[in-house]
Amino acid sequence: MIKPRTTPGVMELLPRDQIAFQRMLDVIRRNYERFGFLPVETPVFELSEVLLTKTGGETERQVYFVQSTGALGQGGQPELALRFDLTVPLARYVAQHEHDLAFPFRRYQIQRVYRGERAQRGRFREFYQCDIDVIGKDTLGVRHDAEMPAVIHAVFSELGVGPFTIQLNNRKLLRGFFEGLGIADGERQALVLREIDKLDKRGAEAVRATLTGPDFGLAEDVADRIMAFVQVRSNSHADALARLDALGSGNATLAEGVAELREVVELLKAQGVPESDYAVNFSIARGLDYYTGTVYETTLDDHPQIGSVCSGGRYEDLASHYTKSKLPGVGISIGATRLFWQLREAGIIESAESSVDVMVGLMDESRLGDSLDIARQLRAAGINTEVQMEARKLARQFHYADKAGIRFVALYGEDEAARGVVTVKDLRAKEQFEVPRAELAATLRVELEQQRAMGSH
Amino acid sequence: MIKPRTTPGVMELLPRDQIAFQRMLDVIRRNYERFGFLPVETPVFELSEVLLTKTGGETERQVYFVQSTGALGQGGQPELALRFDLTVPLARYVAQHEHDLAFPFRRYQIQRVYRGERAQRGRFREFYQCDIDVIGKDTLGVRHDAEMPAVIHAVFSELGVGPFTIQLNNRKLLRGFFEGLGIADGERQALVLREIDKLDKRGAEAVRATLTGPDFGLAEDVADRIMAFVQVRSNSHADALARLDALGSGNATLAEGVAELREVVELLKAQGVPESDYAVNFSIARGLDYYTGTVYETTLDDHPQIGSVCSGGRYEDLASHYTKSKLPGVGISIGATRLFWQLREAGIIESAESSVDVMVGLMDESRLGDSLDIARQLRAAGINTEVQMEARKLARQFHYADKAGIRFVALYGEDEAARGVVTVKDLRAKEQFEVPRAELAATLRVELEQQRAMGSH
Repeated sequence: MIKPRTTPGVMELLPRDQIAFQRMLDVIRRNYERFGFLPVETPVFELSEVLLTKTGGETERQVYFVQSTGALGQGGQPELALRFDLTVPLARYVAQHEHDLAFPFRRYQIQRVYRGERAQRGRFREFYQCDIDVIGKDTLGVRHDAEMPAVIHAVFSELGVGPFTIQLNNRKLLRGFFEGLGIADGERQALVLREIDKLDKRGAEAVRATLTGPDFGLAEDVADRIMAFVQVRSNSHADALARLDALGSGNATLAEGVAELREVVELLKAQGVPESDYAVNFSIARGLDYYTGTVYETTLDDHPQIGSVCSGGRYEDLASHYTKSKLPGVGISIGATRLFWQLREAGIIESAESSVDVMVGLMDESRLGDSLDIARQLRAAGINTEVQMEARKLARQFHYADKAGIRFVALYGEDEAARGVVTVKDLRAKEQFEVPRAELAATLRVELEQQRAMGSH
Repeated sequence: MIKPRTTPGVMELLPRDQIAFQRMLDVIRRNYERFGFLPVETPVFELSEVLLTKTGGETERQVYFVQSTGALGQGGQPELALRFDLTVPLARYVAQHEHDLAFPFRRYQIQRVYRGERAQRGRFREFYQCDIDVIGKDTLGVRHDAEMPAVIHAVFSELGVGPFTIQLNNRKLLRGFFEGLGIADGERQALVLREIDKLDKRGAEAVRATLTGPDFGLAEDVADRIMAFVQVRSNSHADALARLDALGSGNATLAEGVAELREVVELLKAQGVPESDYAVNFSIARGLDYYTGTVYETTLDDHPQIGSVCSGGRYEDLASHYTKSKLPGVGISIGATRLFWQLREAGIIESAESSVDVMVGLMDESRLGDSLDIARQLRAAGINTEVQMEARKLARQFHYADKAGIRFVALYGEDEAARGVVTVKDLRAKEQFEVPRAELAATLRVELEQQRAMGSH
């Protein structure tokens, strides 16, 4: 006998949690489609040679390699490896199918990715990423950068996870600002930005001390200007624009960054995103060296400890490893597994009711034909219906429905048959009522639509 | 520069094919939920020790093992392996979560599985399986066996792939029949059944010759009775029952099999499945030794060369490797990747129109705000909408929409603004019309609902 268990670092859910998780994915997918993004799925494994174009780094150390039985123990790097994000597969996909795609190419991808993380609570070796990207050929206007936060807004509004803020910044603006302070060297900027990225974790004092300490050796007034700069958070649309104005024109890089971020902020308003839901935040840098312009992070106002729930940005060239074509893009990613896990830990998400709307109980073996016919009518009306195929004790049938989270139990026994009605028990409202058999589907459909409209499914 | 490519044996689709494939998966999922099955997802990898409980066999030779960078080259069997079906993960899941599940446990699972197949046209190393199973605790009535073909009927009716036949048989009936002919040894029966399984491929003559040849040495009249038996196909509900009656009661095993299959056939009718869509077929054995009662295969009447598109059956005990509990079950599986690939090869499925319903074109840079507002209204009405963010040449915008398979292009230029209307080009109907701006969303919604009702999306 083998102990049934999974490897640590995976999220496997019981059905009612899986239903809640599936609804989250459905909301994300529906909104991605609503904004005109097209679905793409790629294989879970890529050829190792294709996947691992960059040498070394944290990512490669965490890669899961795949090999069939026959290839085991033959030495050398295995031919296949599991994807560790959706960006490298996107780059490979766009380069491979370049001549069959229409640009700007707008794709969404909702699939699992794999990282050989150490086993630790809240760290996942397998997790869903939900990505959208717009990829241009040769060029892609900055206006597309303004579409991303509009999608984020739509998704998180519908997820119903409370108030959130989409935080915006621009890497050119950051670079230009540092150049203006005499920190012109790209690598040195990157180091300062990496320190600034720790602001939330280490606090302003500690970061300032590092900047004026031996590692960086910045003058006190330079450190002061940096600290003031990175603590900017706008609190309204007008404030966001004023904060940008206050930066002045400075050097060309700063001016370009300011102009881009201004356009993004203006277009957010034009798309009807409420000004309470976005802010400029000059401390946002994003860890990756990958981003070159606009960058995004999204935080839940009431749950800052969760950190960013949706991040992304603008990059110069998606697929330089695979094609000579220049493919600039902008994109965002939601890590749905981690998000779901954290929202559940924080008590924001609970197990869903069952996806089964109605259980047709069976009081009497001779009525099975009626049960099946009632179920057929309910299903034809779009109602998810389960039939008790055996006349177990009624108490057991109710216990089963209750444990499974099914709202309605429909009963059709001798008494009901004589009067042409169905008895319905509403386990949620703890009510019982009778409906003429022919009207059952229509009646329950109204009840279920009300429930859905109230968002309490 | 690295050549962008995937490993052979995976199905990677362009967006319009992916949309068509996604619709197929959605139909399957919707119908599985309609019949009261609950969603389960399991990790793509299982612990090798848990996955590979049986020794040897084709399956184990085809397993893909997974190991992280650090574990490479350390010898021994890798700790993880990719699932090769959804049945072993289900067994592990039910045994692991037994005390949190309500029985009979009805689950569906739609995920990809992995097999190290040789590279060959139409053979997939990664493919979707779409499974449902009902798992009982200790016992599970044969009535549940009748739910499976009802689900198959609902799925394949909605998929719209032409007429199909759900073929039914019962392993007890088969065993009993062979016992009656003096072929009582289980292993010998299995060998005969394996020959019969080749009937479609090898033809009746070849199979008969094998049975009377040196390998089996059956008497001519025994071979005749077998050949007559396995060629039985009922052509109506009454005929199915008559074919079962004609078998007589014989031995106990035969009688039990006949009674079970009769109940399944009766309940199929009671569930409203048209009699043209099911048949008893005494040649169906299913390769797996796994099945013990009812077995199913489903074939497309106009495309017999595709073989079975949905198969399954009844098994005695799901998870004997992981738990002492007895867990009998019944289930079916649709291999969606292979099905989609074959339907496309046969010309039954074509690329879908875009999931984007409307593209808002941009004739004049100054109108971007209007475009975004129009898009906002369309999206609020549930219409998938893409905005042209830059005023490229109109011909290019139309070319883009056409290539992407988008049906409607909405235009709002100076002339339209002056009159408060939007010009709509219907690229499918090759028509153009004007709508008051405030009525655009309602008008297009009607058009799109008509399109969906006609099933021509």
